[in-house]
Amino acid sequence: MASVADHAARIAQLLPRTAVERRALSEARGLALAHDVVARVTLPPFDNSSMDGFAVAAADIGALPVELVVSQDIPAGVDPQPLQPGTAARIMTGAPVPPGADSIVPVEQTSGRGTDGSVVGTTVRLHSVSSAGQFIRRRGSDVTEGDVVLPAGTVLTAAPIGLLAAIGVADVQVHRPLSVLVLSTGSELVAPGEPLRPGQIYESNGPMLAAALAETGAVATLAHFVADDVPAFLDALGTAVAGAANPIDLIVTSGGVSAGAFEVVKQALADRGVSFTRVAMQPGMPQGSGRITLDTPDDSSREIPVVTLPGNPVSSFVSFEVFLRPAIRAAQGFSAAAQHRPKAALPLAEPLTSVPGKAQFRRATRAAGTVRAHGGASSHLLAALAHSDSLIEIPADVTDLPAGAEVTVWDLSGT
Amino acid sequence: MASVADHAARIAQLLPRTAVERRALSEARGLALAHDVVARVTLPPFDNSSMDGFAVAAADIGALPVELVVSQDIPAGVDPQPLQPGTAARIMTGAPVPPGADSIVPVEQTSGRGTDGSVVGTTVRLHSVSSAGQFIRRRGSDVTEGDVVLPAGTVLTAAPIGLLAAIGVADVQVHRPLSVLVLSTGSELVAPGEPLRPGQIYESNGPMLAAALAETGAVATLAHFVADDVPAFLDALGTAVAGAANPIDLIVTSGGVSAGAFEVVKQALADRGVSFTRVAMQPGMPQGSGRITLDTPDDSSREIPVVTLPGNPVSSFVSFEVFLRPAIRAAQGFSAAAQHRPKAALPLAEPLTSVPGKAQFRRATRAAGTVRAHGGASSHLLAALAHSDSLIEIPADVTDLPAGAEVTVWDLSGT
Repeated sequence: MASVADHAARIAQLLPRTAVERRALSEARGLALAHDVVARVTLPPFDNSSMDGFAVAAADIGALPVELVVSQDIPAGVDPQPLQPGTAARIMTGAPVPPGADSIVPVEQTSGRGTDGSVVGTTVRLHSVSSAGQFIRRRGSDVTEGDVVLPAGTVLTAAPIGLLAAIGVADVQVHRPLSVLVLSTGSELVAPGEPLRPGQIYESNGPMLAAALAETGAVATLAHFVADDVPAFLDALGTAVAGAANPIDLIVTSGGVSAGAFEVVKQALADRGVSFTRVAMQPGMPQGSGRITLDTPDDSSREIPVVTLPGNPVSSFVSFEVFLRPAIRAAQGFSAAAQHRPKAALPLAEPLTSVPGKAQFRRATRAAGTVRAHGGASSHLLAALAHSDSLIEIPADVTDLPAGAEVTVWDLSGT
Repeated sequence: MASVADHAARIAQLLPRTAVERRALSEARGLALAHDVVARVTLPPFDNSSMDGFAVAAADIGALPVELVVSQDIPAGVDPQPLQPGTAARIMTGAPVPPGADSIVPVEQTSGRGTDGSVVGTTVRLHSVSSAGQFIRRRGSDVTEGDVVLPAGTVLTAAPIGLLAAIGVADVQVHRPLSVLVLSTGSELVAPGEPLRPGQIYESNGPMLAAALAETGAVATLAHFVADDVPAFLDALGTAVAGAANPIDLIVTSGGVSAGAFEVVKQALADRGVSFTRVAMQPGMPQGSGRITLDTPDDSSREIPVVTLPGNPVSSFVSFEVFLRPAIRAAQGFSAAAQHRPKAALPLAEPLTSVPGKAQFRRATRAAGTVRAHGGASSHLLAALAHSDSLIEIPADVTDLPAGAEVTVWDLSGT
């Protein structure tokens, strides 16, 4: 049997980095920067006031209070004149500090409150003067031109987007999202909304995997599930790949890969470039991966990576988390930190046993600084999975864990 | 000054729950269930095999190995015949256990490996027999018909979507996303990509807030920023609200709310139903909220909630996190747990000081079980914000914190 690490490396190698494309910043949310971004401006670009008030030269101020003539008005956005010695300049938050001024007196410390129109030529009484430089945001105190402000691999969430806009970046080079086809197999499957006949179950892996892919930043195309029939499966694959709105970068199947007599995925793909293997993990032992060349209805043919997940819903979910999510995020250029779920060491609230020789991934919930397995180890317990916020990772050589033992916990609560 | 809690309550009250709408499961990702979902089926719907192998009656098995006739073949999806006494039924993972069988012998424990065609009428040698019931997933062991499988407020991520599909739910009633108009103000603002003249800065709050809103599950419409000009501001608001693709549920402005002489948002909205207040927090002291009635170009007029954020980028971001994000998620029907950022108590890696009388929210990074403030307290430090994964919340009455002191840390790393 392959180890979890072996199979993870195999899946990671299967997926090359996606192409780099230029996108408007507003269209790049959730994608990763393809290159380091170097600031072409300095932030702030000029010394500016952090308060509404009056700009003065500290050396001009003797005993307090002091009354000074207001020599200019500096709203945000203007290029001020140098401060006339012995005067004050009214200044707004964010406006440039005039040359010659080195202190800002907040309006609350002056007689200037309530002045709406022009005050140039009137006087203002200052009740205190801050020490030189206070309430001034210095040019370059945030970013200096030439700085690498964000490294390649940064995922563009709100704050990095704000920073990019602030340095004047209107569009960015990002890795495009992976385009993934999802296809579930199984003669027992029925579409939600239809009646269930004996022996049938509702298809759930497709919708679940499509959502998981979207959370990973990929673009998922969900094909209608197919029965355990090799020609029907291959036909569905070819049709879906040819008809997808985006060229498919990866095919993910679920089901049809275990040791039975009707393993449609295995039978269809084993001699087309996909290797099937057993991975020393629970759930998720039967796995497959490779590249296939599909004859599509439009006669185009391309080599496409394929990952075949087991059909039990929990096995499918855990396999996705362990193998596909990090590999897809790496392919999309995400930084190493953003490829993986946040992991923490937490004590077990209750004892736990695991199987020998296999890494076990137990669904769990965190509370009060501890973690507790939720539901049993069985791979059909979808309700327990849906109420879990974590996975407990138990190494292959560990079988008994007492309450209080520290375990590695994957935080699934983010998207 | 209002407390953070007071202002948070005010913003929460401003936003009513959004309407409930029915959506296909595939269109409901990231939204919250409007009602408890009750299972209309039992999962599994029938006892089924967790292994590929042979179904037998344990009482039929004497000394091992034993050779039994294969009396039927049970692929997934069929309705099997009762097990003929003294025989074995070949069974696939997920297929119904036939009446009369109480044990599954995995194919690996039999002579049956490699049999592809029909095996009915041949014999199979069993090398071991599992204890009665092993490898059988019992009907109802996951979900029982009538169970509330997911409560109202559940946010539909991959696993809940999988569970809903599994119980046959094709569409769900969810709260629709809030539709939010974002409008930045400031005469110093320039669009990214344009050259900067003296006194000007690039507009960053709009793109940042639009991204933050999208991460919150809302639909953001970003209006082009406007200068500090009351008629232009009101005109831009009216035009944007009238022209928005989705009816606007909330207007969020940034800038123009502090104590200066050119506070466009304050001047335009103070006598139109918006209250401006100072909140005892840093950053983010100047805040405003209320409802306005806009005269739009198409002569429709509606009362629309407004939240006015301060213009400093970090103030705007922190205000959004503290007030708007939880209120928007509540309005979208998210469960209490999903409204708020995950919070934890972590020790400070370094000492920290705060201002008296104001709650302080410091941008920070977590590492090795501790948290460290990143950049200073100043509200223009956007680069430090973009590299942070946390906020440290320091209560208003705390001014000095030694290294090792436990602080409340908001985890910003999820979306």
